[in-house]
Amino acid sequence: MSRFQHVGVVGAGAFGTALALVAHKAGRRVTLFARDPKQADAIRRNRENTSYLPGMTIPAAIAVIADPTAMEDADLILLAAPAQATRAVAENLRVHIRGEIPVVACAKGIERETRLLQTEIIAEILPRALPAALSGPGFAEEIARGMPTAITVAAADLALAHDIAAALATDTFRPYASDDLIGVELGGALKNVLAIAAGVVTGRKLGESARAALIARGLGEMMRVGAALGARAETFMGLSGLGDLVLTATSLESRNTLFGVALGEGGSVDELLAPGKPLVEGAHTAPVAAELARRLGVDAPILAAISAVVAGSINVDTAITSLLERPLRAE
Amino acid sequence: MSRFQHVGVVGAGAFGTALALVAHKAGRRVTLFARDPKQADAIRRNRENTSYLPGMTIPAAIAVIADPTAMEDADLILLAAPAQATRAVAENLRVHIRGEIPVVACAKGIERETRLLQTEIIAEILPRALPAALSGPGFAEEIARGMPTAITVAAADLALAHDIAAALATDTFRPYASDDLIGVELGGALKNVLAIAAGVVTGRKLGESARAALIARGLGEMMRVGAALGARAETFMGLSGLGDLVLTATSLESRNTLFGVALGEGGSVDELLAPGKPLVEGAHTAPVAAELARRLGVDAPILAAISAVVAGSINVDTAITSLLERPLRAE
Repeated sequence: MSRFQHVGVVGAGAFGTALALVAHKAGRRVTLFARDPKQADAIRRNRENTSYLPGMTIPAAIAVIADPTAMEDADLILLAAPAQATRAVAENLRVHIRGEIPVVACAKGIERETRLLQTEIIAEILPRALPAALSGPGFAEEIARGMPTAITVAAADLALAHDIAAALATDTFRPYASDDLIGVELGGALKNVLAIAAGVVTGRKLGESARAALIARGLGEMMRVGAALGARAETFMGLSGLGDLVLTATSLESRNTLFGVALGEGGSVDELLAPGKPLVEGAHTAPVAAELARRLGVDAPILAAISAVVAGSINVDTAITSLLERPLRAE
Repeated sequence: MSRFQHVGVVGAGAFGTALALVAHKAGRRVTLFARDPKQADAIRRNRENTSYLPGMTIPAAIAVIADPTAMEDADLILLAAPAQATRAVAENLRVHIRGEIPVVACAKGIERETRLLQTEIIAEILPRALPAALSGPGFAEEIARGMPTAITVAAADLALAHDIAAALATDTFRPYASDDLIGVELGGALKNVLAIAAGVVTGRKLGESARAALIARGLGEMMRVGAALGARAETFMGLSGLGDLVLTATSLESRNTLFGVALGEGGSVDELLAPGKPLVEGAHTAPVAAELARRLGVDAPILAAISAVVAGSINVDTAITSLLERPLRAE
């Protein structure tokens, strides 16, 4: 019997909706919170999230609401809004959630202005909550369809991570527990930058060998940055680091990868990131990640190159040449 | 100035031919040895290896011969015959190569009968040679076309690995040096088994999330087996472990992956491995790898599952279910 009975999912995008379906299938009582009352109404009426996860029936047992007071009864909160919206969403929840309950960051990214990880934002806004993170290789649609997915749930307290994982586990959705919160979150944030680089390789038609080498060397950068911040190397070799990197960087479902592909094909950064275009999380994380590596004294040429390309200070060809011309050293 | 002037490439398949082109571009004198005199004649006449690497011009400066005495002058040998043929090829060379020169294993696999790694075979047959290995993510055609490729050259002596790497480096072919011979070779051999598993996931339409999770958890198995044999964890996170695994497992160019796809689609092991069908290196390595893991007391459920499927003792569905039903634990 799970110690968590009522799961509140905040954010009715594709991923939040998929997590609500999983939690329901796992036997939990589920409330899905959509900020926009019209969206909540539409989902309730259609029993389908036609905007973000079309084709999946949302069982009547899942309450879909736009009233944050409905979260007051939840004993486990999954925060599934976009990474840059987490602060606003957490502030909106502050008076509506119970005290010491786990609040699980399900978005991946570093906050632009503050350079904080998602659980650091949660700790700041909701000081009594128990911050946790859910990360790893999982596409919303595949999760919703019940296709096999293994991801990581991290919390400072491993027992708590285990309990959250157990509350969400189904036959096909397999959460593994970790107590390396920094490592799990950093992996999720940095892989978006590396996915842009992988996209550039694809867009420039540099070949599958080059992309595989970039993924391997990119993982090394991720691990070096993580080690300097106290994360464990093994975390990056697992689901939330390598697994997520492989999924994002080899799939054309990722906006980060597609942004890289467009850059590789000669697209302009300004046009691709213009207002109204889809949010490219990795483009926002790139400068933060590169500066972090610099400050930590960590060698991270791929993060630096993508940061410079996004900033417009070098072009794609210069970036590729600079990466290829690096001296041959021991791995 | 490289300490190696004359590179002998043994085996005129796709990979051997690509390596001959690279060594030539790197400024070395190159002799490409084809066992079959007719094949050597055809390549010489056409200046193209029409059977294995069509469309690539082989410069006149590359000598193509079927007479092993031509190897007597080489000061660096690249062995690029199939892994299961390495013993016979090395025996054929024994009286024709100089004493203490590096002999670099470029094939990936464990010898079926003896369970020896490629460089262990070289050490046994050519005791005066300096065994080395070249491994990592590189498709022959991409290498031959000069597309960016980064691979690993390993030798017990790091300085030797560096010298071999330097002798083969071009603007786009980037060999990195390592002294972890066991790790580099084991990564190349085991990734073929994991590529079969990735193919099964694709063939069974289990989704990209499942494949990414499998790659991440497969890398963990590789590392645990390697650690038990004295290899370094970092080696598996690099080009010859992770990089090669990602390339093989996400590409449909690999025979191992395609074998897995066919199994996932319901194909029969016996028919897919029947005489006359293409060699599936991973199918031969699977039982050896699974037994090795068992003997070392290492948890390697994916290697075990593929070994059992290849042996016909369980079917693909049972293998998938057994992997999914494993208890949830910490990563």
